[in-house]
Amino acid sequence: MSASSTVWQGANRRIHMQEVGLRDGLQMEKAFVPTADKIALCNALSAAGLSKIEVTSFTSPTAIPALKDAEIVMREITRRPGTVYTALVPNLRGAERAIESRTDELNLVMSVSATHNLANLRMTQEQSFTALAQVVALAQGANVAVNVSLSCVFGCPMEGDVAQADVFGWVQRFVDMGVRGITLCDTTGMAYPTQVHQLAAAARARWPGVEFTLHFHNTRGMGLANVLAAIGAGADRFDASLGGLGGCPYAPGASGNVCSEEIVHALGLMGYDTGVDLAQLVAAAQQLPALIGHDIPSQIAKAGPRLTLHPVPADFDAIRERALSR
Amino acid sequence: MSASSTVWQGANRRIHMQEVGLRDGLQMEKAFVPTADKIALCNALSAAGLSKIEVTSFTSPTAIPALKDAEIVMREITRRPGTVYTALVPNLRGAERAIESRTDELNLVMSVSATHNLANLRMTQEQSFTALAQVVALAQGANVAVNVSLSCVFGCPMEGDVAQADVFGWVQRFVDMGVRGITLCDTTGMAYPTQVHQLAAAARARWPGVEFTLHFHNTRGMGLANVLAAIGAGADRFDASLGGLGGCPYAPGASGNVCSEEIVHALGLMGYDTGVDLAQLVAAAQQLPALIGHDIPSQIAKAGPRLTLHPVPADFDAIRERALSR
Repeated sequence: MSASSTVWQGANRRIHMQEVGLRDGLQMEKAFVPTADKIALCNALSAAGLSKIEVTSFTSPTAIPALKDAEIVMREITRRPGTVYTALVPNLRGAERAIESRTDELNLVMSVSATHNLANLRMTQEQSFTALAQVVALAQGANVAVNVSLSCVFGCPMEGDVAQADVFGWVQRFVDMGVRGITLCDTTGMAYPTQVHQLAAAARARWPGVEFTLHFHNTRGMGLANVLAAIGAGADRFDASLGGLGGCPYAPGASGNVCSEEIVHALGLMGYDTGVDLAQLVAAAQQLPALIGHDIPSQIAKAGPRLTLHPVPADFDAIRERALSR
Repeated sequence: MSASSTVWQGANRRIHMQEVGLRDGLQMEKAFVPTADKIALCNALSAAGLSKIEVTSFTSPTAIPALKDAEIVMREITRRPGTVYTALVPNLRGAERAIESRTDELNLVMSVSATHNLANLRMTQEQSFTALAQVVALAQGANVAVNVSLSCVFGCPMEGDVAQADVFGWVQRFVDMGVRGITLCDTTGMAYPTQVHQLAAAARARWPGVEFTLHFHNTRGMGLANVLAAIGAGADRFDASLGGLGGCPYAPGASGNVCSEEIVHALGLMGYDTGVDLAQLVAAAQQLPALIGHDIPSQIAKAGPRLTLHPVPADFDAIRERALSR
C-alpha cells in the first residue's frame, strides 16, 4: 500500500500479530504464574494463530524472578508451524541459554535514548551496542534469527523527543551487522499517528529489506490509531499483549502494551487478515485475571466483540404493551 | 478533504469538539454534583474553547435527579461567544423549559433501533418521531436551533446491526422537517473504522447542507480510530466527554464516551485545530474525581500529555558512574 488512502478497507491484507504478553506482560507482575500455566497459555496463543510469540526472557532469574522458568517454558511449549517463538536475550549468557532451549529468534533490546538506556539497562548505549554485537555474532554462528527492539523510538519519558536521525543511526548500525528484524518501540505511549506514519514510511523506504515491527503502548489512548497510521505507511507487523498487560516502571500512570484482542478485533472488522482466531484469543485473555490476581485492561475481554448482543430489559414486554396501548 | 490520504496530517484543519460530559456523563452518576460546581465546570469548559457544550437535560427531575437543576445551570453559566450551549430535550414540556432558560439549541434523541427506542425511551419509534416533530415545530416557531441525535446508528446492543437504509430513512425524515443538525451516535461502542468511514462519507454526500456530528463510545477501544476514520471521510464535529464519563445501561461492560482530553490531545499533536486549550481541559477533568466520587477513565488525566516528562531514577548518577567505570 503506497498511501493511507485505503487504510480503512483491509481488503484481506495480511497483518502479522506478535504476542508479547508472556514476556513484556508477565515480567511486570508480582504473582509468579506457575510454569505449567505459562506453557498452557503459550499453547493457547499458538493455537489462536499468532505469527510470533515472545515466550519468555533469558535474563537473570534474580533480576526477573517472574520468568525464572525460561528454559522449561521454551522447551516444553507445543510449537505450531507458522509461529515464530522468540525470547528476550540481554547478553551472551542469555543467548546461550536461549539457543540451548531451541528458541527460534533472539530478541535484543537497547534504547535510542541514552538516559533510558542507562536507567533501564544500566549501561551506556555504546556498552549495550558492544554487548549486543557479541550476541548477534553468536546467533549468526548458530544460524539463529535475531531481532533488535529499539526502545523510546517515539520519545523518552525522561529526555523527551528523540531525533529521527539518532533512531535511524542505531537502525543502520544493526543493519550493517546483518540484523534483518527491527522493532520500533513506543516504550511509554508517546507515539502519535502523524509521527508514526512519517517514521514508519521513512524506515521502510530506507531499508526495504528489513522486517520492521511496530510496538505501541496505549498510555494515552492512541494505540489502535497508531497501528492504523503504521498500516497506512505500509507496516504489517505489530507487537501486542494479551489482555493489555505490561507497562514501564519509568513512566508512572502508563498503561500497558496495546491489547492483542483489541487490535485483532478491530483489524478483523476492518477486513484485515491477522490469521488469529478472536474467540480463542479472548478465551485466553479471560484466563489471565485468575493467573495474575487482578483485572486486565482489555476492553474486548470486558465488553465482548461488537456483535455480542445483550438481552432486552426484563420488563420489555410490559414496556412495549404500554407504548402500543397509547 | 476528499479522501483519507492526508488524515495523518491535520494541517490546521478545524475540528469542532462538542462536550457532552455535563449531560451524558453526569446523568449516569450516583452522586449529585452541586449546582454551583456544575456551573463552574461548564464555565471552565467554555474558557477552554469547546465549540459546543451540552449543558444539561430538561427531562423530568424525578427521572434524572442528577440533572434536576437544569434551569438554574442553563441560566447562570457564563456564555462565551463562539460556544453553542445545547441541552437534551425529550418532549414539549422540556423544550419550553429549555427555551425559557435561553438554551441556544435543543438536542432531541431517538433511536434507529426499534428495540433500543422502546427500552430506552419507552415509546415506539413512530411515537418518538411524532413527539419530536412537535418539539421541532415549537423550536422553529421560537427561532431556536435544533439538533437530532440518532442512537444506535452503528449497531444496537440488543438487535445487532442496523441497516444503513433505515438510518438514512430517519435522517431524511428529520431533514424534510427542516432539521439541519444531525448527530450519528455510536451509543454502545459498536462502530468500527471501516463502517464509520463509509457511513460518514455517504451521509455527507447525500446531505451536504446538514451539519453532522459523530458521537463515539470507547467501549471496544476504537474511539480515536473511529474519529480519525470519520475525519478521513470529511467529518469535522465530534462529541466527547470530559474524563471519558458516560456509558449506557443497556450494554454491560460498556465504557464511556470518547474522552474529550484524549481526542483533543491526539488531534492537537496531529496538527488539527480544535480551538481547545488542552491544559485547561485537563485541569477541568482532574476536578471530576472529587465531584463524582470515583476515578475517571481518562488516560490523559492519568499519564499527562505525551511530553510530560518524568524524573530519572533517584540512583541515576550512581548508575551512570558505575557504567562509565567499567
